[in-house]
Amino acid sequence: MNFKEELSKYIDIINSELQKYIETKECPESVLNEAKGYSLLAGGKRLRPILMIATYSLFKEDYEKCFKYAIALEMVHTFSLIHDDLPGIDNDDYRRGKLTNHKKYNEATAILAGDSLLNGAYKILIDDIGNTSNVDERARKIEALYELSYGIDRMIAGEYVDTEFEGKEISSDYLEYMHENKTGALIKAPVKIGAILAAASKDEISELEKYAEKIGLAFQIKDDILSEIGNAEELGKPVGNDRERGKCTYVTKYGLETATKMLDEIIDEAINIIKNYNKNSEFLVELALYIKNRNK
Amino acid sequence: MNFKEELSKYIDIINSELQKYIETKECPESVLNEAKGYSLLAGGKRLRPILMIATYSLFKEDYEKCFKYAIALEMVHTFSLIHDDLPGIDNDDYRRGKLTNHKKYNEATAILAGDSLLNGAYKILIDDIGNTSNVDERARKIEALYELSYGIDRMIAGEYVDTEFEGKEISSDYLEYMHENKTGALIKAPVKIGAILAAASKDEISELEKYAEKIGLAFQIKDDILSEIGNAEELGKPVGNDRERGKCTYVTKYGLETATKMLDEIIDEAINIIKNYNKNSEFLVELALYIKNRNK
Repeated sequence: MNFKEELSKYIDIINSELQKYIETKECPESVLNEAKGYSLLAGGKRLRPILMIATYSLFKEDYEKCFKYAIALEMVHTFSLIHDDLPGIDNDDYRRGKLTNHKKYNEATAILAGDSLLNGAYKILIDDIGNTSNVDERARKIEALYELSYGIDRMIAGEYVDTEFEGKEISSDYLEYMHENKTGALIKAPVKIGAILAAASKDEISELEKYAEKIGLAFQIKDDILSEIGNAEELGKPVGNDRERGKCTYVTKYGLETATKMLDEIIDEAINIIKNYNKNSEFLVELALYIKNRNK
Repeated sequence: MNFKEELSKYIDIINSELQKYIETKECPESVLNEAKGYSLLAGGKRLRPILMIATYSLFKEDYEKCFKYAIALEMVHTFSLIHDDLPGIDNDDYRRGKLTNHKKYNEATAILAGDSLLNGAYKILIDDIGNTSNVDERARKIEALYELSYGIDRMIAGEYVDTEFEGKEISSDYLEYMHENKTGALIKAPVKIGAILAAASKDEISELEKYAEKIGLAFQIKDDILSEIGNAEELGKPVGNDRERGKCTYVTKYGLETATKMLDEIIDEAINIIKNYNKNSEFLVELALYIKNRNK
């Protein structure tokens, strides 16, 4: 398997599924739908749906069965970015090299586009559950949907803690709590969802959760590092913002060197958990390395 | 049956259920939870949960079975109020005689409290569905949840149309479209949800939908009338705002006299649909009159 080819195949699938979802028909709320599509198709890394599909693929081959969850995960992630970028929260003008939603449209549209994406994710999945006649499959989908709702709940709580403590010195416990929730919860959720949909056992899910926790934390540390020393052009947003705002990050708290060392260690731990998991786990090993080495 | 006693009984039940839901335990996001409780317990009319319980009660007596849906409906309604009040949308300082959420806390908290209430409504109901072992009951709950997600989708679209056309002259078709979605959808949803949960037939649901459409429209016309000539103290918010903002309402478009006549006619139509519906429909007749005669 070639990791880059596999990754790019997944990204293409997800983008094409997202494209199908975007409503383009003429109606009084056309611009709202356009605004949702603008952010949804702004070319993200699609990490969450990829994680879900890759986890599902540890157990089963028919991963097209979880495409609706893939779309929903990306909708939820996009909702969170649109709201985080709002003037009332992070007040960011650029995201992925493009104007943020409220800059491109306006604040009311951005608030409502976010709301509509969050709600739309549920609408798609509940519709899918209603159309699933197999009782066991239906039960798994409901369990997976609960994991999604729990992950979103935690993500919002983490985002709140982030805004609450901006400009304040916080303990390492709080920093960890914030990231476990803000970023970690919606990285753990796709892994659990993929495993649940693939009918993995409780023990299997529990091992995968440990992997997900590691890469969730690693993802955030890498984000903090990129925010400090990344290339603004590649990132598609200015660097150095966190420090300016007095945000407490792994870099501002521990320094660049220690943060980089922590990142290396955590990725090693994640790889050790997953490398002998089963015969299909190679992609998840590579994904952990990709999270460490990414430039954007 | 005494309508006022029955109404007040329902309100007490709903308030006490909402109170149980509010998380008060100490955690880093305590203030977010407090902000959610602040708006949730600000003493609304609880129209949506009451409509749902009353519709369920047309068919069955054990209405405590739909309390979770009652809570969720009020959470969704509260989410929509918090976001509508934001500076980026209606920029309102008062709601129900109290400071709006972003005025009491701050904008970031209000955005996230709204997000968390919307998500929380789904989380409660998905958890409940997961804990429902009876296959038919589970199927009804899933169908009801889909109706909720559809209603929210339409409510957000309607709110968008409202912001988009502020200050512009709009056709009566657009005005109707806006209200059918913005207010109507989340008045129709509880009626459908109540009927679905009570295992009503397709024909029964279809009749009830017509009733719900009428009272949804009537509710909005009455809102427009109160916004123009209501008592600011009773309403808990300033009057005359709609006109100032150049909002197109039933009153600004048709004048007070015609709007009042429309309201009377629509309530009569609603009552004609429901009065002989079955032996338990008296409350819904009274509820239609209450919508017409309310002062807040």
